[in-house]
Amino acid sequence: MNFCSSCGARVMIQVPQGDHLPRHVCSSCQTIHYSNPKVLVGSVPVWQGQILLCRRAIMPRAGYWTMPSGFMENGETLQMGAARETFEESLARVTIEDLMSVINIAAHNQVHVLFRARMNGPEHGPTPESSEVRLFSEADIPWEDLAFRTVSQTLRHFFEDRQLGQARLHLVDLDTTRF
Amino acid sequence: MNFCSSCGARVMIQVPQGDHLPRHVCSSCQTIHYSNPKVLVGSVPVWQGQILLCRRAIMPRAGYWTMPSGFMENGETLQMGAARETFEESLARVTIEDLMSVINIAAHNQVHVLFRARMNGPEHGPTPESSEVRLFSEADIPWEDLAFRTVSQTLRHFFEDRQLGQARLHLVDLDTTRF
Repeated sequence: MNFCSSCGARVMIQVPQGDHLPRHVCSSCQTIHYSNPKVLVGSVPVWQGQILLCRRAIMPRAGYWTMPSGFMENGETLQMGAARETFEESLARVTIEDLMSVINIAAHNQVHVLFRARMNGPEHGPTPESSEVRLFSEADIPWEDLAFRTVSQTLRHFFEDRQLGQARLHLVDLDTTRF
Repeated sequence: MNFCSSCGARVMIQVPQGDHLPRHVCSSCQTIHYSNPKVLVGSVPVWQGQILLCRRAIMPRAGYWTMPSGFMENGETLQMGAARETFEESLARVTIEDLMSVINIAAHNQVHVLFRARMNGPEHGPTPESSEVRLFSEADIPWEDLAFRTVSQTLRHFFEDRQLGQARLHLVDLDTTRF
C-alpha cells in the first residue's frame, strides 16, 4: 500500500494514537487503513459415501487435488460462501451440514472454515478453476497428490470422524498451507 | 475506495474477467482490490463461576455491557486474537478454551468467533475501551443493558451449556448486531 484509497495522497506507516500496531495512515486525510486476516470457506461434499475433490487448474499447486474452497465474500454467511465456492469450483450443488474444521494459518493471515456437505445430486464437472472434478472412495483418495496440508488434514479428520460415527469440530493451527 | 492503493490512479468498479462480482479495479495498473468480511474474536472469561463483562467506553453502544472482543489482526490465530482482545479491553489474562460461538453477520460483512476462557487470576480493570470491568454471577447479568444481540445470545448459550454440563458449538446467523 502506497496511496490512500480514499483521497489518493501518500500513506505513511505509523502507530495511530490509542493503537498498538503500525498501520497505513494517510498523510493528508489521516484515514487509517487496516489490514485484517481473510476467511477461506469450503466443503467436503459427499455423494453416496464418496468425496468430491477438484484438481486445481490454477496456481498455486496446479494439477494437485483439493476440496472446493475459496475466499469468503462480503454479504454472505460462512455457509453461503462454502456452498457458492463448492458450486463455482465443482458444479456440484450441496447442502451445507455441520462445521468440521477451523484452521488458523497465522503466517498467511488466513482462517480456513470447512463444512461437511451433502451433494444434492450426482452432478459435477470441470470449471475454469478445476481441470477435473471426481468422486473418490476413501481407498482411492490421492494422498500423494493433495494440494495443501489443509486438505490432507481435513480429509484425515473426515474419515476418522466417519469411522467413529461422530461429527466433531477440529480447531487446528498450521504453520503453512503447503506440504 | 476512490484511488488505487498501489499506484494512486483512479479506480473503476467492474467485473474482472473470470470473476462474477464487481470489484474496484485500477484504471492504470489494473490491480484488483478485493474487499472481504472481517473476523471479530473474543471470549467469555470465567473466574470462580463468574463471567467478566466490560462496559463500553466507546461508540457504538457506549455505556452498555459486552464480552471483550475486537477485530482479529494479521499474524495471529483466532485464539491469540481472543486472548489479546480480552486483555486489551479488560486487563484480564485468560487461557482460551473451546470454540463456543461462530456468528455470521452477513449484513455487516463480519464473522464473530467467541471462545470459552478461564481467567488466570482475578485481576481485571478499566481500559481506554472499557469504562468499567466487572465479574457477574448469572443472576446479576445486566440483560437489559447488553450492547449487542451477539452478547445476549452468546451469554444465553453459555449458561444453557453450563446447566447441561456440555461445551457445545453454536453456529448462528444474525441479521444485525443490535438489539
